[in-house]
Amino acid sequence: MTSSSNRNAFIVGLGLIGASAALALREAGWIVSGTDRDESVTERALELGVVTSSTLDESHRLVVVATPAGDVAKVVNELLEKHDRTDLIVTDVAGVKGSIAARVFDPRFVGGHPMAGSELRGMAGARADLFRGCTWVLTPTASTEPATYSELHGVLRELGANVVAVSASDHDRLVAIASHVPHLLAGALMNEASRVAEYDAVLLRLAAGGFRDMTRVAAGDPTIWPDVLFENRAAVTQSLLAIEARLAALRGALENSHQDLVAEELTRAAKARRELPGRALDSDNLAYLRVNVSDQPGVLASVTTAASEVSVNIFDIEIAHGIEGTGGTLLLAVDARHVELFCRTLTERGYQVGVE
Amino acid sequence: MTSSSNRNAFIVGLGLIGASAALALREAGWIVSGTDRDESVTERALELGVVTSSTLDESHRLVVVATPAGDVAKVVNELLEKHDRTDLIVTDVAGVKGSIAARVFDPRFVGGHPMAGSELRGMAGARADLFRGCTWVLTPTASTEPATYSELHGVLRELGANVVAVSASDHDRLVAIASHVPHLLAGALMNEASRVAEYDAVLLRLAAGGFRDMTRVAAGDPTIWPDVLFENRAAVTQSLLAIEARLAALRGALENSHQDLVAEELTRAAKARRELPGRALDSDNLAYLRVNVSDQPGVLASVTTAASEVSVNIFDIEIAHGIEGTGGTLLLAVDARHVELFCRTLTERGYQVGVE
Repeated sequence: MTSSSNRNAFIVGLGLIGASAALALREAGWIVSGTDRDESVTERALELGVVTSSTLDESHRLVVVATPAGDVAKVVNELLEKHDRTDLIVTDVAGVKGSIAARVFDPRFVGGHPMAGSELRGMAGARADLFRGCTWVLTPTASTEPATYSELHGVLRELGANVVAVSASDHDRLVAIASHVPHLLAGALMNEASRVAEYDAVLLRLAAGGFRDMTRVAAGDPTIWPDVLFENRAAVTQSLLAIEARLAALRGALENSHQDLVAEELTRAAKARRELPGRALDSDNLAYLRVNVSDQPGVLASVTTAASEVSVNIFDIEIAHGIEGTGGTLLLAVDARHVELFCRTLTERGYQVGVE
Repeated sequence: MTSSSNRNAFIVGLGLIGASAALALREAGWIVSGTDRDESVTERALELGVVTSSTLDESHRLVVVATPAGDVAKVVNELLEKHDRTDLIVTDVAGVKGSIAARVFDPRFVGGHPMAGSELRGMAGARADLFRGCTWVLTPTASTEPATYSELHGVLRELGANVVAVSASDHDRLVAIASHVPHLLAGALMNEASRVAEYDAVLLRLAAGGFRDMTRVAAGDPTIWPDVLFENRAAVTQSLLAIEARLAALRGALENSHQDLVAEELTRAAKARRELPGRALDSDNLAYLRVNVSDQPGVLASVTTAASEVSVNIFDIEIAHGIEGTGGTLLLAVDARHVELFCRTLTERGYQVGVE
């Protein structure tokens, strides 16, 4: 079995993301098996051809664990212990990464989180193109073998995803404000509106586009959220506190007639929101660095940690292996404004760095 | 001059709502004059034919005051005093009604608030169909002459709006939670995310659809909001307090491991959001058209150009090819409010169109 020819994948958990991964991999030419803890879901997946078998065996090269976040570490560790082949690649898709990274130490594992979703839930909402153009975060640790990372990176690119590498703890801090807290805000707003609508149903007729936009995520599958929120509760409670402080400040400004403060806050928010898509998609501001590295575990984590220590974001990582297989080159995309700082930091740590 | 034949309207304030009202009334057969405190805007409106004159005179039957909320009462009272005809109908479009109702006592006035908007601002974002299908609140008071109300109601129905009558104070209490507080939440969330993104720009790549949905309203014209929020600050601060209490309770449940409480809140919110009447989920907003087309190059461009010429946004396109390969069907998803217009446009250009 060679790594290049083996395209057998196994999915654990056939919900929205797991089943979409199965369909996307199938479309990319993989043979996909998989299972769900709910046997009727597994049966349905076999019937529909979402998976061709439900048995994980020695033929599988790639395993995607798409269970609820709280189960991932246990499932991954059991699986890695049972299957001791060195060329296995195991990843997960949970919305929280730190608590998993803290419990899985294996060169064959790299945590992941596709930033894609839908109001639909379960296999019924699955789509082969769910990940096309989406940001797929990978969170390599000191344990992760670079080859594991680079091969998975290649697979995800095949599915049309844009891969971003960050540390597990950075991921958790950032999704708290980008995803988890917004979900709680949407839920609180929807429930407060429902309370008022109970005795004044006309409220619901006054709910225009803005209200609908703001509460849309609240319609998402409520069964997956408590799990994710609890796994990430340190970062979520911190972000929630920051939002509560901002709301209290706005309320204070309203109560004390500081109209200028309210105007400033809203003007700043309007400017930031208008710039949001441009900044997110702008590839003109990226610079590319080449870093010569040995093929030792921990190199990736060392480089990404160095980056986060000096507050440099790595937008993308690619790994180019040397001809003799004894070393390689990391290709890193970073904000062009930070390229000098990051070069200096890496050079100080003994890396050979070149700017593309 | 009889009330039934006089269709001369005057708009004070040619921003997004005022200019859209002008266009909508024009399309409904009215002769529309109007003015803006910014002379260059008035000139541009005359040039573009949004209004045909900028002078308010005895010919005008209907006056729509579309100034910032804080100016409405003064403008309306001056206008009613200057024009003492009994058949005049005066309304406004401000997002807050109690402070206006408390200062205008005239049988010829009824306050209004169309629940429509856009991230665009000013006359540039104006559309004749902005009010089609929207809820337009009217807030008659004890002073309002029933004939004033019923005639205005008829005009708004002509523009495609669904009219709802509530008291001015109920309106303010309900829009606080349906619109004003959501705007503050979006602003607080956007600003907190910006603060984090300043030193960690990768956050913006993790901002998926949910975050974008939740902050979209924050991009709206920041100059109109402080005014509206201050005019309605009693209701807004009360609603904000309720939301802050809900967020603190959720945070407490996270900190104290009450997973069941978080699950309950989110389950209740998901249920309520799914049951939101009318255009609850995105797909409820969309209508699907089937267009039979030949397999000639340029057909797609022709259909999409037709759509943009009549300002219809195509949300989705699918191409189903015919069995013999000599033709096919385009499946187009468009805003349900535009389906009639778009059908007519395509039919006029020789396409066979069916609505799904």
